[in-house]
Amino acid sequence: MSKQKKFVESITARDKDFSQWYTDLCLKAELMDYSDVKGFIIYRPYGYAIWENIQNYLNKAFKKSGHENVYMPLVIPETLFQKEKDHVKGFAPETAMITTTGVEELTERLIIRPTSETLFCTHYAKVINSYRDLPKKYNQWCSVVRWEKTTRPFLRGKEFLWQEGHTAHQTEKEAREETLSMLDIYEKMGKELLAIPFVTGRKTEREKFAGAIDTYSLEALMHDGQALQSGTTHYFGQEFAKAFDITYTDDNNERQYVYQTSWGVSTRLIGAIIMVHGDDEGLVLPPYVAPIQVVIIPIQETVKGVMENANLLYETLDKAGYRVLLDDTNKSPGWKFSEAEMKGIPVRMEVGPRDLEQGVVTIVTRYNREKRQIAIEDVITQIPQILKEIHEALYERALAHVKAHTYEAKSYEEFKAYIKKGGYVAMSVAGEEAELMIKNDTTATARVIPFDQTLITDSCPVTGKKATQTIWFARAY
Amino acid sequence: MSKQKKFVESITARDKDFSQWYTDLCLKAELMDYSDVKGFIIYRPYGYAIWENIQNYLNKAFKKSGHENVYMPLVIPETLFQKEKDHVKGFAPETAMITTTGVEELTERLIIRPTSETLFCTHYAKVINSYRDLPKKYNQWCSVVRWEKTTRPFLRGKEFLWQEGHTAHQTEKEAREETLSMLDIYEKMGKELLAIPFVTGRKTEREKFAGAIDTYSLEALMHDGQALQSGTTHYFGQEFAKAFDITYTDDNNERQYVYQTSWGVSTRLIGAIIMVHGDDEGLVLPPYVAPIQVVIIPIQETVKGVMENANLLYETLDKAGYRVLLDDTNKSPGWKFSEAEMKGIPVRMEVGPRDLEQGVVTIVTRYNREKRQIAIEDVITQIPQILKEIHEALYERALAHVKAHTYEAKSYEEFKAYIKKGGYVAMSVAGEEAELMIKNDTTATARVIPFDQTLITDSCPVTGKKATQTIWFARAY
Repeated sequence: MSKQKKFVESITARDKDFSQWYTDLCLKAELMDYSDVKGFIIYRPYGYAIWENIQNYLNKAFKKSGHENVYMPLVIPETLFQKEKDHVKGFAPETAMITTTGVEELTERLIIRPTSETLFCTHYAKVINSYRDLPKKYNQWCSVVRWEKTTRPFLRGKEFLWQEGHTAHQTEKEAREETLSMLDIYEKMGKELLAIPFVTGRKTEREKFAGAIDTYSLEALMHDGQALQSGTTHYFGQEFAKAFDITYTDDNNERQYVYQTSWGVSTRLIGAIIMVHGDDEGLVLPPYVAPIQVVIIPIQETVKGVMENANLLYETLDKAGYRVLLDDTNKSPGWKFSEAEMKGIPVRMEVGPRDLEQGVVTIVTRYNREKRQIAIEDVITQIPQILKEIHEALYERALAHVKAHTYEAKSYEEFKAYIKKGGYVAMSVAGEEAELMIKNDTTATARVIPFDQTLITDSCPVTGKKATQTIWFARAY
Repeated sequence: MSKQKKFVESITARDKDFSQWYTDLCLKAELMDYSDVKGFIIYRPYGYAIWENIQNYLNKAFKKSGHENVYMPLVIPETLFQKEKDHVKGFAPETAMITTTGVEELTERLIIRPTSETLFCTHYAKVINSYRDLPKKYNQWCSVVRWEKTTRPFLRGKEFLWQEGHTAHQTEKEAREETLSMLDIYEKMGKELLAIPFVTGRKTEREKFAGAIDTYSLEALMHDGQALQSGTTHYFGQEFAKAFDITYTDDNNERQYVYQTSWGVSTRLIGAIIMVHGDDEGLVLPPYVAPIQVVIIPIQETVKGVMENANLLYETLDKAGYRVLLDDTNKSPGWKFSEAEMKGIPVRMEVGPRDLEQGVVTIVTRYNREKRQIAIEDVITQIPQILKEIHEALYERALAHVKAHTYEAKSYEEFKAYIKKGGYVAMSVAGEEAELMIKNDTTATARVIPFDQTLITDSCPVTGKKATQTIWFARAY
């Protein structure tokens, strides 16, 4: 029992130091480890498996909506990267460059992709000729490198894993629809897989992607009241098409520029899962994204019937397609409980002699630590119900947190007070001038301009000018 | 019809210029495209989908045998890379290095991983403490960079996609078993997925991996009689463990070094598939790795019943889990046939009014262009049979090719004559001296030392010394 205590005590309490709690959890739950190069992390099996579950979900959704996976080169020639001027301005300060092979200097510096617009555009210019070639809807899974100064596991790294979709269309309408439908797919993933209620909307001019006409974003609210940008979709119009000369012959035999989009989510989502659902005992994983959904822990393994039943339950659940672990190591049950809690395994199933006498097992749901006994023969029908129940409860809890921390500000004083409390604060403002002042005064930034627009006040509380739009602000990661 | 002819005529005949045929096919079947940086290719949807099918097969096999996926950083600090001396000697001339962010020079040069032994070893040194932590059986899917001078699509690139497994064990026995069991998994993949009969064995000292004690290889014989190394597994012993200080406490509470392995296959396998099975009409894809297994081509779409039946067949096969394409574009049937042949789709299903009157569809199997008619209601039961039949026929054809091009040489003259013909030539030789002479005289290299060892001659035909082992030689890619 002393060992068990030590294991648990080694996480900082969530409300004492959220940032330290987060780092402790990343390491203790064995999601990641640091490498020898600052900002480059190791995705350990348990962390990587979460990412694989996200990949599986999205690959199905992408393919169903007509997207195809490709793989573009790791490197971009410096001159190619400079073709679209807004784009290069946004990324230039944080590009890692290959300049030598150790034996000879390269004739041109090669940028490690921080994002692949320029590569997709070059390829599209070659393979798109006729309207019959459109739309082109490509996606790639890869890692990208951005030379960030401040880094944190999953949230901001010099290297991170992501998917980047890049599409080309005949019309503005179709491209704009793509931009919004990908936002929908991400939002649905939040609801169905991550149990995270995303807030969506358009980004302000200041916050949009370098080279985009419009950027849309999904924001998640962390337990500490800070927002996390969790995914973006971009409408590019014809800006890249003109810079890269991507044209097609329309059905009137005239050359036209294509309309483009791009969109992506990254391993930052793992950070979102941790900070939305986790608690003082460790991770709390939503069941559909959890690498292990059920952990079976035998109690008094040596008593006749215990291991037999544990094995049988394992096989039944495994065969039915659940991700299940039978923890038959020689650690104490208490130690195993703590480990399973640290790792946020949604369901713990205790198989012990006293329960077995009554033909039951004990089920403990991680998120609320509730115990219940269920008959062994009901396990296979009850587990899907319990997983669904956990998923929904986690989503509702996260949604309640968002609702309890979303405010409307009618004055700048009110705004500052709400921001201090943490959460989203909606305010109707006059424009970029107000946005800048707010950032300087409070460090809060414009998260989204929600699709539903109603003015809270007629004039902007910050500048006194006529308010033009309502923006949701928050402090953000 | 003129368009159709042009499409087909644009591939070089296989026996006229094998190398040009290969390049034509890579481009014409839309497997890949060149990027702006020599040696870095674009994996187009059709090529990438082949890789995804290989990934799916191997991920299942890896997980079933207890391996876990992880992701290690893209970069290796130069000093870390230099820790194992044989390893660095082997890779140093071909390492791409990040030296700057464009804004500031890095304090240490970072090597883009050409392989990740050094990263796994550093991590293992941190996370392995007790015998309870062993074995560690990790795998990662990623791209690696090697600054090759001569590059060819899929076969040799500055960047390629691969998986690299890295494991650590308590005993030599266990590590050696892992090295061979991974070779088995790859060989089985050849048999079950790629329809390629691999020849397996140990590599000579000259040909083994930089840092390995023993390297095992899978070799495939291309249509032109050249061999292609298609995968390798390495037994490292304790060399890396000592260089990186990877130790564990055994059950006697003593510190011990671990025994390690690594193993990998790459997108080179796509090249193998092309060169083993392809013909003058284009790709010939084995059905279980093919991105599209059945293409349905409607004949006279406007005739009542044609599109209805084509759609129904599509839905039936799609629902049953087959990868099926309904080609309902407005191209001519002849053009569609040529495209499907170029892309090597195993089964073409023609749905036309004359066949429909008799309640049948016409099936053409790509590899032998045989036609047969099958009743519409039998399609769902016949397709799995036909796919199996194609797979087996392709495997048998490839195996017959290997058998017809495998020779035993009793004299050096005989050896040279066989090598000129193309194929594997087995010869019993004295050692590295003979191997070197053979390479200089014939460009043939030692492919494998087969597991089954029988001496063909008592003395080495090259050096006249006592023969010590039989080696399979071939010219190789």
